[in-house]
Amino acid sequence: MDRIDIIELKETKLADNDADARSLREEMRRKGILYVNLMSSPGSGKTSVLMQTIRHLKSTHRIGVMEADIDSAVDAERIAQTGVKAVQLHTGGMCHLDADMSRQGLRALGDDGLDLVFLENVGNLVCPAEFDTGAALNVAILAVPEGDDKPLKYPLMFRVCDAVLINKMDSLPIFDFRLEKAREAILRRNPRAQIFPVSARTGEGFGPWCEFLNVQFEQLRGEQNG
Amino acid sequence: MDRIDIIELKETKLADNDADARSLREEMRRKGILYVNLMSSPGSGKTSVLMQTIRHLKSTHRIGVMEADIDSAVDAERIAQTGVKAVQLHTGGMCHLDADMSRQGLRALGDDGLDLVFLENVGNLVCPAEFDTGAALNVAILAVPEGDDKPLKYPLMFRVCDAVLINKMDSLPIFDFRLEKAREAILRRNPRAQIFPVSARTGEGFGPWCEFLNVQFEQLRGEQNG
Repeated sequence: MDRIDIIELKETKLADNDADARSLREEMRRKGILYVNLMSSPGSGKTSVLMQTIRHLKSTHRIGVMEADIDSAVDAERIAQTGVKAVQLHTGGMCHLDADMSRQGLRALGDDGLDLVFLENVGNLVCPAEFDTGAALNVAILAVPEGDDKPLKYPLMFRVCDAVLINKMDSLPIFDFRLEKAREAILRRNPRAQIFPVSARTGEGFGPWCEFLNVQFEQLRGEQNG
Repeated sequence: MDRIDIIELKETKLADNDADARSLREEMRRKGILYVNLMSSPGSGKTSVLMQTIRHLKSTHRIGVMEADIDSAVDAERIAQTGVKAVQLHTGGMCHLDADMSRQGLRALGDDGLDLVFLENVGNLVCPAEFDTGAALNVAILAVPEGDDKPLKYPLMFRVCDAVLINKMDSLPIFDFRLEKAREAILRRNPRAQIFPVSARTGEGFGPWCEFLNVQFEQLRGEQNG
């Protein structure tokens, strides 16, 4: 296996992260790259979801992945096994990424010629939701063992997300998780959220999720050429 | 069921949270109250662990609970069902509690005559570890479905914790979680951490954990009288 590039991010204190994020989003749109920000609690299965997503899409899309963590490179090493371009970003203790940090990562990844770039944000249901990374799509993962009440307790995360994956569906029989209650709680926070029950372990549910990503990508390319 | 008191915490920007935390810790020690700060990712089972702990200790100890969340009162309502004193703290979007916020909560709870006070911190493996709440004991919960690599990715949380509960042990057969690997990773961060594998659902492992709490409590009362 190739050695993983580890990028030590510099903390930014930009006066206006929202303006910076808009500018990055526009830059990515011009380049025709769908940039997806994946957020969740620690251990919800962000990396496993990415690996299944890559398996479904890598024959049709050129994919790059930025793995953000406070420490370690275990996630980027797992992603690199799928054969796609991956870098590990270290946040220097920071609990989230902002637009400038995500730009530093994109430069390190080298996004030329890519169709899809995924950012695996720091595992945290609070702070990452407060900072626009410049991504075109915000996606949250809620895992079945975490319970169906999380959208009630972490409102902003579910409000800012375009899509929510409910992962570890294969563990449903052993946990007190009511899918309909989770769905209602998510839609109360964001009525337009797209919800995809999946299992990264079994591959269940990845068809509709990857089709959703593909539609978003085609739409972005259409706008670019339109 | 009685109505739950919901306390809207005021954000504090004290110059020196560490000094404030030391002063609160000393105040609690003088009062003979063991103050325990419980931290974890969202959905690791903090509330369920607390409910089992209360069941084990409520006949011998007077217990109070502060439930901190960004929104909702679902946790304090569950705790109140056990018959102990509980308040819900709302952090106003903040991702952690500091010493002054925890003091506001203790005042609202009314700690006179209590032996043990538990703070259920905001579900987050990053930020709460950075702020000393003034608790005598910091405890982290790592749930089996989250994976055994979390101490590698969230180093500070495991470094500041006196004890780590590995929860949802009853789900071990269906997840790729190696208990020995988790134990090694925790001890690499903090060689003095006490580790307790438990299942809040089945009650497995709560004897040693509650005995540990009792020893800490007896020690604090011994120091107080010594």
